[in-house]
Amino acid sequence: MAAEIICVGTELLLGDIVNTNAQYLALELAKLGIPHYYQTVVGDNVERLKKAIAIARERSSILIFTGGLGPTPDDLTTETIADFFQTSLREDQEILAEIEAKFTSLGREMPPSNSKQALIPMGADFLPNPTGTAPGMIWQPEANVTILTFPGVPSEMKRMWVETAIPYLESQGWGKERIYSRYLKFRGIGESALAEKVAHLFDLTNPTVAPYASLGEVRLRIATKAPSLEAALQVIEPVATEIKEIAGLDYFGADDDTLPAVVGELLRWQKQTLSVAESCTGGGLGEIITQIAGSSDYFGGGVISYDNRVKVALLDVNEGDLNNFGAVSAIVAQQMALGVQKRLATDWGISITGIAGPGGGSETKPVGLVYIGLASPEGNVTVSEHRFGENRDRLTIRQISAYTALDRLRRNLLIMS
Amino acid sequence: MAAEIICVGTELLLGDIVNTNAQYLALELAKLGIPHYYQTVVGDNVERLKKAIAIARERSSILIFTGGLGPTPDDLTTETIADFFQTSLREDQEILAEIEAKFTSLGREMPPSNSKQALIPMGADFLPNPTGTAPGMIWQPEANVTILTFPGVPSEMKRMWVETAIPYLESQGWGKERIYSRYLKFRGIGESALAEKVAHLFDLTNPTVAPYASLGEVRLRIATKAPSLEAALQVIEPVATEIKEIAGLDYFGADDDTLPAVVGELLRWQKQTLSVAESCTGGGLGEIITQIAGSSDYFGGGVISYDNRVKVALLDVNEGDLNNFGAVSAIVAQQMALGVQKRLATDWGISITGIAGPGGGSETKPVGLVYIGLASPEGNVTVSEHRFGENRDRLTIRQISAYTALDRLRRNLLIMS
Repeated sequence: MAAEIICVGTELLLGDIVNTNAQYLALELAKLGIPHYYQTVVGDNVERLKKAIAIARERSSILIFTGGLGPTPDDLTTETIADFFQTSLREDQEILAEIEAKFTSLGREMPPSNSKQALIPMGADFLPNPTGTAPGMIWQPEANVTILTFPGVPSEMKRMWVETAIPYLESQGWGKERIYSRYLKFRGIGESALAEKVAHLFDLTNPTVAPYASLGEVRLRIATKAPSLEAALQVIEPVATEIKEIAGLDYFGADDDTLPAVVGELLRWQKQTLSVAESCTGGGLGEIITQIAGSSDYFGGGVISYDNRVKVALLDVNEGDLNNFGAVSAIVAQQMALGVQKRLATDWGISITGIAGPGGGSETKPVGLVYIGLASPEGNVTVSEHRFGENRDRLTIRQISAYTALDRLRRNLLIMS
Repeated sequence: MAAEIICVGTELLLGDIVNTNAQYLALELAKLGIPHYYQTVVGDNVERLKKAIAIARERSSILIFTGGLGPTPDDLTTETIADFFQTSLREDQEILAEIEAKFTSLGREMPPSNSKQALIPMGADFLPNPTGTAPGMIWQPEANVTILTFPGVPSEMKRMWVETAIPYLESQGWGKERIYSRYLKFRGIGESALAEKVAHLFDLTNPTVAPYASLGEVRLRIATKAPSLEAALQVIEPVATEIKEIAGLDYFGADDDTLPAVVGELLRWQKQTLSVAESCTGGGLGEIITQIAGSSDYFGGGVISYDNRVKVALLDVNEGDLNNFGAVSAIVAQQMALGVQKRLATDWGISITGIAGPGGGSETKPVGLVYIGLASPEGNVTVSEHRFGENRDRLTIRQISAYTALDRLRRNLLIMS
């Protein structure tokens, strides 16, 4: 009783698009506790699709198709499945009327080719598509074979999955036990260093604890199979608490928490405001902070001091220090943080100055050298020196600089609260 | 003589990662003109992997594996392939020494488990991995079967593909005719409007012209199969020229061109400088501009005027106008552009003020209302009003605002040059 995902589309074989549908469905199957051992990608070709169905039927009992439900001659998933199971198609008048109505509501007439989307194998049920014109189907053509079809458009597929496929699969007995996961997120500690600290937990079997790859962030996933969220939390929470205690300040949030959201909450809670002075990040730190709706409650703004003259004119950086120590120096970072804090009249001021590369580095100041200044409400400024350069490109150095700066503020806010 | 991509990894079946390796390899196979009809994903499981190999061997002759080359007990791609073709493994002393050396260079001792990565089937060649510890292999275990294996880490896989696999496949006669594509990129015109203008070209068979889905940008792909780049360009260029003439200023670049790079080149060429005043984008425009290495040649910096007081203090926006017309108004956009141009002493000044949402909208000023100001070297300011709101979320409204602002500058630079 395993599921198999079969993605139909020549655009996948040409590499035109990345197969995000397979990932989404795989994650959903795992959540419902439905085993899933194979995924197949095949082009818009009747014979090859039939061969893929024949193979899938031998090894899987729930066949989930995406793609090939459109109105063009290339779209042949429905008719090929029907043909494989030697079943004829019927035209559903209700669905046809719905498709026509969708065109009418857009002020257009339905092209004749779209009538094909109202065809379905005898005995199959439609799987409604609330947003697009291509409905899918749910069909049990023979004992031990269930077919679900979805269009390839991810947003349509996802909505159909959530609104119809999940309830259907639950009605078939799936999802009574499902996998619940909690992701814990960390900053300022490497994956292997964290793994060493919590190594004793990796041997647990319920819940399981595992590191989880993610761009730039270190995460641990705590997972358990349980009949309800409540039951899952009873298993997950004690382990989560233990990990948080071990990690201390390196832990910053769980699940959907993001660093700018966490920092924003801390600022809001402490009724404090923030401004930024950015050189090598060019506005990227401000961009991250203002991704959060409502960030105007605590974010005053900033100065992008790319040109040294801007550092002097808008941030009151000392021209002599600029000349003597260079723009990428601890003293300039210090003055930038103080300058933006004062000019924008905020409680905190963050500054970033560094060499993002690929050019501009030297032996004493290599690419990736970054100074981060943090001016506190008490008037103290601390500057940290970082070397982000090795094996990192310009965009990564800039991104890690911005997140590291934000994380320094987070730690200070936590210590002071 | 078709290729099949077989991605091995339970993390793919759990939906932990999206299968970007399959897309990369699919694109590369298409470029080399190697037919490719199926992709398979299978977990880290000996029996199921063997079944997948058996199926693939029946229908494909070049089997490309990714994943399962690591040092852990779960990594079993090499031994399973060898076992399937009833071939024993040998330990390669040279490769073993290389793996040990990689650990030594990191100041670490090689864990015993890594010695497994020096195992290879008798008769197979190693496919060197310059960046990681897991080499792949190239092997013809029997007539009409070629095996290529790669680690799952995308950066390692790509480098191995480019440095070793492509030359190998070319030596086998592939790539004599390959698909060459040129992508033309457009701003300021919708996909369907552009499609109507160039509809007569969609019927061409050599080269083919097709719209190409891409986030936020409209693109056309012109493609042809040819024995050399030169021959391809003779087919592609006349059509590209025709499209560029039809599109006029809406065309901004080709292939790897990006909007900030194109604008940067225009500024550099005209020896002009730029500064930005950002409200709702919060630094995102500066971030995009400074993605380009060397942007300090023409980018002075900017002011992130999130708080209205910053607009007054650092951009000389009139406080009365702020109160009378609100921060999101044409007159404030105008003053912001002039203010940043003057304060940062640059030739051009761009301003963005708008409502990114999801909150903060009203009937007269809905979410998505954005004003973009552009102050020119001649001292003129033009403000454009945009309504980006419908069906767009906060991040998309911010991104489209930044790119639209940059595109306005591009058009002005082109008209004036």
